[in-house]
Amino acid sequence: MRRKLRMGMVGGGPGAFIGEVHRRASRLDGRIDLMAGAFDIDPEKSLEMGTSLCVAPDRTYREYKEMIEKELQREDPVDFITIVTPNNWHFPIAKECLEAGFNVMCEKPMTMTLAEAKELKSLVDKTGKVFGLMHNYTGYPMVKLAKDMVKLGDLGEILKIVVQYPQEWLARPIEKEGQQQASWRTDPKQSGVAGCMGDIGTHAANLAEYISGLSITEICADLTTFIDGRLLDDDGNCLLRFNNGAKGLLQASQVSIGTKNDLAIWVYGTDKSVEWHQERPNQLLVKGLGTPVEIWDRAYDYVTEKSAAAARCTRIPTGHPEAFFEAFANNYLNFSDTIFAALEGETPNELALDFPGVDAGVRGMAFIETVVESAASEKKWTSFKV
Amino acid sequence: MRRKLRMGMVGGGPGAFIGEVHRRASRLDGRIDLMAGAFDIDPEKSLEMGTSLCVAPDRTYREYKEMIEKELQREDPVDFITIVTPNNWHFPIAKECLEAGFNVMCEKPMTMTLAEAKELKSLVDKTGKVFGLMHNYTGYPMVKLAKDMVKLGDLGEILKIVVQYPQEWLARPIEKEGQQQASWRTDPKQSGVAGCMGDIGTHAANLAEYISGLSITEICADLTTFIDGRLLDDDGNCLLRFNNGAKGLLQASQVSIGTKNDLAIWVYGTDKSVEWHQERPNQLLVKGLGTPVEIWDRAYDYVTEKSAAAARCTRIPTGHPEAFFEAFANNYLNFSDTIFAALEGETPNELALDFPGVDAGVRGMAFIETVVESAASEKKWTSFKV
Amino acid sequence: MRRKLRMGMVGGGPGAFIGEVHRRASRLDGRIDLMAGAFDIDPEKSLEMGTSLCVAPDRTYREYKEMIEKELQREDPVDFITIVTPNNWHFPIAKECLEAGFNVMCEKPMTMTLAEAKELKSLVDKTGKVFGLMHNYTGYPMVKLAKDMVKLGDLGEILKIVVQYPQEWLARPIEKEGQQQASWRTDPKQSGVAGCMGDIGTHAANLAEYISGLSITEICADLTTFIDGRLLDDDGNCLLRFNNGAKGLLQASQVSIGTKNDLAIWVYGTDKSVEWHQERPNQLLVKGLGTPVEIWDRAYDYVTEKSAAAARCTRIPTGHPEAFFEAFANNYLNFSDTIFAALEGETPNELALDFPGVDAGVRGMAFIETVVESAASEKKWTSFKV
Amino acid sequence: MRRKLRMGMVGGGPGAFIGEVHRRASRLDGRIDLMAGAFDIDPEKSLEMGTSLCVAPDRTYREYKEMIEKELQREDPVDFITIVTPNNWHFPIAKECLEAGFNVMCEKPMTMTLAEAKELKSLVDKTGKVFGLMHNYTGYPMVKLAKDMVKLGDLGEILKIVVQYPQEWLARPIEKEGQQQASWRTDPKQSGVAGCMGDIGTHAANLAEYISGLSITEICADLTTFIDGRLLDDDGNCLLRFNNGAKGLLQASQVSIGTKNDLAIWVYGTDKSVEWHQERPNQLLVKGLGTPVEIWDRAYDYVTEKSAAAARCTRIPTGHPEAFFEAFANNYLNFSDTIFAALEGETPNELALDFPGVDAGVRGMAFIETVVESAASEKKWTSFKV
Repeated sequence: MRRKLRMGMVGGGPGAFIGEVHRRASRLDGRIDLMAGAFDIDPEKSLEMGTSLCVAPDRTYREYKEMIEKELQREDPVDFITIVTPNNWHFPIAKECLEAGFNVMCEKPMTMTLAEAKELKSLVDKTGKVFGLMHNYTGYPMVKLAKDMVKLGDLGEILKIVVQYPQEWLARPIEKEGQQQASWRTDPKQSGVAGCMGDIGTHAANLAEYISGLSITEICADLTTFIDGRLLDDDGNCLLRFNNGAKGLLQASQVSIGTKNDLAIWVYGTDKSVEWHQERPNQLLVKGLGTPVEIWDRAYDYVTEKSAAAARCTRIPTGHPEAFFEAFANNYLNFSDTIFAALEGETPNELALDFPGVDAGVRGMAFIETVVESAASEKKWTSFKV
Repeated sequence: MRRKLRMGMVGGGPGAFIGEVHRRASRLDGRIDLMAGAFDIDPEKSLEMGTSLCVAPDRTYREYKEMIEKELQREDPVDFITIVTPNNWHFPIAKECLEAGFNVMCEKPMTMTLAEAKELKSLVDKTGKVFGLMHNYTGYPMVKLAKDMVKLGDLGEILKIVVQYPQEWLARPIEKEGQQQASWRTDPKQSGVAGCMGDIGTHAANLAEYISGLSITEICADLTTFIDGRLLDDDGNCLLRFNNGAKGLLQASQVSIGTKNDLAIWVYGTDKSVEWHQERPNQLLVKGLGTPVEIWDRAYDYVTEKSAAAARCTRIPTGHPEAFFEAFANNYLNFSDTIFAALEGETPNELALDFPGVDAGVRGMAFIETVVESAASEKKWTSFKV
Repeated sequence: MRRKLRMGMVGGGPGAFIGEVHRRASRLDGRIDLMAGAFDIDPEKSLEMGTSLCVAPDRTYREYKEMIEKELQREDPVDFITIVTPNNWHFPIAKECLEAGFNVMCEKPMTMTLAEAKELKSLVDKTGKVFGLMHNYTGYPMVKLAKDMVKLGDLGEILKIVVQYPQEWLARPIEKEGQQQASWRTDPKQSGVAGCMGDIGTHAANLAEYISGLSITEICADLTTFIDGRLLDDDGNCLLRFNNGAKGLLQASQVSIGTKNDLAIWVYGTDKSVEWHQERPNQLLVKGLGTPVEIWDRAYDYVTEKSAAAARCTRIPTGHPEAFFEAFANNYLNFSDTIFAALEGETPNELALDFPGVDAGVRGMAFIETVVESAASEKKWTSFKV
Repeated sequence: MRRKLRMGMVGGGPGAFIGEVHRRASRLDGRIDLMAGAFDIDPEKSLEMGTSLCVAPDRTYREYKEMIEKELQREDPVDFITIVTPNNWHFPIAKECLEAGFNVMCEKPMTMTLAEAKELKSLVDKTGKVFGLMHNYTGYPMVKLAKDMVKLGDLGEILKIVVQYPQEWLARPIEKEGQQQASWRTDPKQSGVAGCMGDIGTHAANLAEYISGLSITEICADLTTFIDGRLLDDDGNCLLRFNNGAKGLLQASQVSIGTKNDLAIWVYGTDKSVEWHQERPNQLLVKGLGTPVEIWDRAYDYVTEKSAAAARCTRIPTGHPEAFFEAFANNYLNFSDTIFAALEGETPNELALDFPGVDAGVRGMAFIETVVESAASEKKWTSFKV
């Protein structure tokens, strides 16, 4: 590595949640420096944030268009731009960044509609730029291990997948009390056609497809808005069918009292099954038929030897827990290695390509549109079409 | 209590599983004596079993009809008859027992069809006999606590119920290898129209309705037979709707490798939620919004003071775990107290009536028929009609 | 089995705790009938208890001497007598029962002093009667599995044993408020020279020796009475040394707030270690070096094939939890099989001899006396002498 | 914050473990830049490491003396120096850094002897420089919460503390196979008079004193070297006494097969107790007498409102786990805020002073010397003297 990558950021102003997570995660490995940003739609706040982040005042911009324009004029422009705005801004900003020649790291969901997602995919293909989509939960080493176990055939054929993502944080109508995070996430104009299913249901679907290597082909969804006056779903239950004949259940909720961020998955095969919980991310339960349940722990040789993808994303020995920021950082690690390779004109390490990108984004938008279509339908099954 | 109740048994011969559980559970409190039985369809085996159980030879019968006839001629006939045969025999035997004037404890599912179930209900109503159906999982004290918490309003309004019952024991076609339990449970002639959903899906549905006090009104089911050549479903996933507008998911499986008997339920209300796992039955997780998760432990004052039903079914102080046999025994405890009251011509203690009976049996059969109908339908929702 | 064993009981009157546990446990397998008893020092209460237990009035005695005398005159005397009185009565009653020719099941601690314990051992040896001591925790199947794993060499050489038994129930001076259980347990005249260490520390020591097959050789103890005015220790911490050079820690407490009955043990060997918790008794954690932790579950083939002792004490398939009463019943199972063999003049099955007896009782009393001696000493190590 | 702090590092060359942890942790909050280093005793390796870290070649030094000398000549010298060498180098390097006017962050144990530790304390007092000692486990927010709960009196008076730190990584003599970490940690010349007790026993002692606010006054230790030929202890068990009369047990081991990094503590008070496990760091179990055990989760209002120290060290909402690096980073957070205050000539925020420093280092060395003295003594109690 000759130098650090230069990062620009759109969004992530005062009070934002995910922008700060991106900043911390991008710092962890010492290979990325935040050099520029249009942090807030309010220029004052953008400057305030830039100052607190030690970003040079002349690279703290009033808005993203200015950042694109000015950075292009520099000798040392940013190498990529991270987009952490509300959902409705993801597509136009990503589009302009790509067209201007920047690599992009985008928060999910990638766009507001499947049509936009497909357009973005075409653009990524055309420009050849590196595009990352922050489905951070697939960054956990034990998730990568699970994926590799499936690929290696350890589980046999996959029969059934159960995935859940319950939260409690919207159990009260806090969007009416000015809670910023709640406000835009429950607003169709900023969030899109789905609420809970767009915000976290997509993570669940992505996790199921990532680990299993399968594709959802049909969905039967029952969405609910439990809080009076809320404009988008805050709970959803789905039956799933996968392309190999496997069956599934997916449920997500933002009104499930007593749950925090309880993303969890059970993948059942003909030979073994695995179970993983985001809130205990360093362990993967591995289970055979009539044998003791095994608790596999991150960073042991038996993990790193089975999964090079997990090994690569492991920073510290077993028993010293890694967690959310480190998983997030793993997407930046692979994303940045892919950019480094591009800068060198080299083919990236295959392992470096293990980060979610525009294809995951297209499937995410297709998931959202399929779920919403199914919820409105009296038919049992709605095809998942991309 | 003047004397012990006298129990007769149909089924439970050598190699049977559930008959022995009934016998142990019925002994635990020292208020029931097994005095007679037609333990096996093979008279030799019936006699062998009777001898090993210290049942008098003249009360070890060749078949149930003989037991009914001979016991009626005695001065000290059995007070009730426990039926632990394969499913297809439940209805005719229960019917004859009731008609002959015996109280009955029957294994579940109660009958082979909903029509039979309703007929049995009429007969119970007509004869006034005490009828117990062994949905044993509702016998656990912490399940009773959960039910009482819902009834007291601790959870607020119920929004969502997630219930699961995965097992692994039929993950291979062991019915073809002569495994007795597997053989009759996968045989439609002995088991009825559903396999997994009849055997254990009914327990899950019963648990959800018992705790919540709600009724399932609509089901959307996806049933699968994963093992080639098996004649009944070995896996099923359902979306549920309840009579108060609550939503639900129910899944059961007998091919989920790595699971043993993992019945578990999550009931989410507007104020609190509860979570219970059959394999850790002494604890109930109680959760509020933004407060620490609480691990409620059986037998503490805060449990027994809240739930008289749980208190009544608690035999030993907290930290000294109770388990499956004790839960089973609780149904016998309440069932026998109800019989004692009947013998005395008294109204039974209301708490004594807390055991599953013919109404649970009718709903169980309706559940099975609805699930099977839904699975065959392209409509999303099938009404749960009793 | 030709007939059921006839049990007599001394103690276990109204309000007693452990007597009722013995009764339930002895019933579970249908091979023991409670036929006689001197249940309470108050004859009225003894009769009341006998009536409620359906014991014949003429076999409900005013005191144990009467029971011994009258039972000897019967054609069908009790086969054994269970002693569940306060500690100070164990020795004299056990002695008289043995001398009169009865087999005995005795609660622990066996006597008030080591000298008495040795005297009782001589008497057992001399009379040849079957003597059981209710160290119930070694009755759990997963404890038996652990013992057999050590014996088979699965753990390699044992290096270290950590055993704990914290409880909270004496965290307040409830003996001053008339709580019957607390009163006699904190009274040196009824309990002996140790409180917490006698009541539950002995269980911990017994468990460590039972599983490991090792003997404690030296103890360094620090005992405390945290509650003002209490006459016996309510907390104790010990360093241990074992006869093979292994090291250990043992702690017990009855004032550890937030703990219920948290007996647990960790046995570390050169090849594997095992961990077991009484409050989750169906699981044994088995751990190798650099390999996944394994959760071994009761009743699986891999358990029952490794440990015939565990297999014998398993009543129901895995996933259907067994617990405290069943463990207790296992001691009765083996104890009664040993009596049956004696009645037949046969050598008992070796597995039937797997119940704690007079030797465990002698070591228990030696443990108590050594701990108390060490606590009073300024020497680091006090020899554990029997 | 006007600018980022400039960090120098001694140690942390290729293959080192803890140096890389310091680097990642120091980056997380974007307030510290690694600007200089003498990373390895081999100048080639030092340069190699500096290059890979993007440290300027002219600030990648051959040895620490050169770094001190050259940095002092710069206009922008490093603000502090982190020392991550083997133990025997901590004292001389720290001394020279302090004498040269640098603030210091030092790995633990601080020195090789108590005498050196006291000398260093005098020097810190004299120079007024900011000195941090990396007892990282006290950086976890839930540990800080526990400390504040004790301080607020939530637990009542502390009666008993049980603390453990078992590991398995030295269960084989890997120091003979060239494993670098194992080699110096088992070498008295580089590690000091204790092995396991110095390396991790000190963490356990520090954690107990940090949370409880108590001081250990007496120790009774039994140290063992289980691996033949190893020169230092690899296992130790201690009885503890505290200055308020509380009792304790402390055990640490590096040969406990099946354990990873299982630091855990139980603090029992007269009103409540708390339990914390390093491998599940986001939860603190809080327990009252006869009430449900509560699982307190990091970042909830009920945590941050009770403990400002925990709130300050929380970066992300509950359910999004934080772990080892973040705890480590918390020490850097408070350490750097204290330096910022010093740079400004201000009194640091009292919360910023919540990081372990030279006093913890002195007590750590006293702990090591006391434990070793006790282990060699036949007296039961050895005074803990500082």
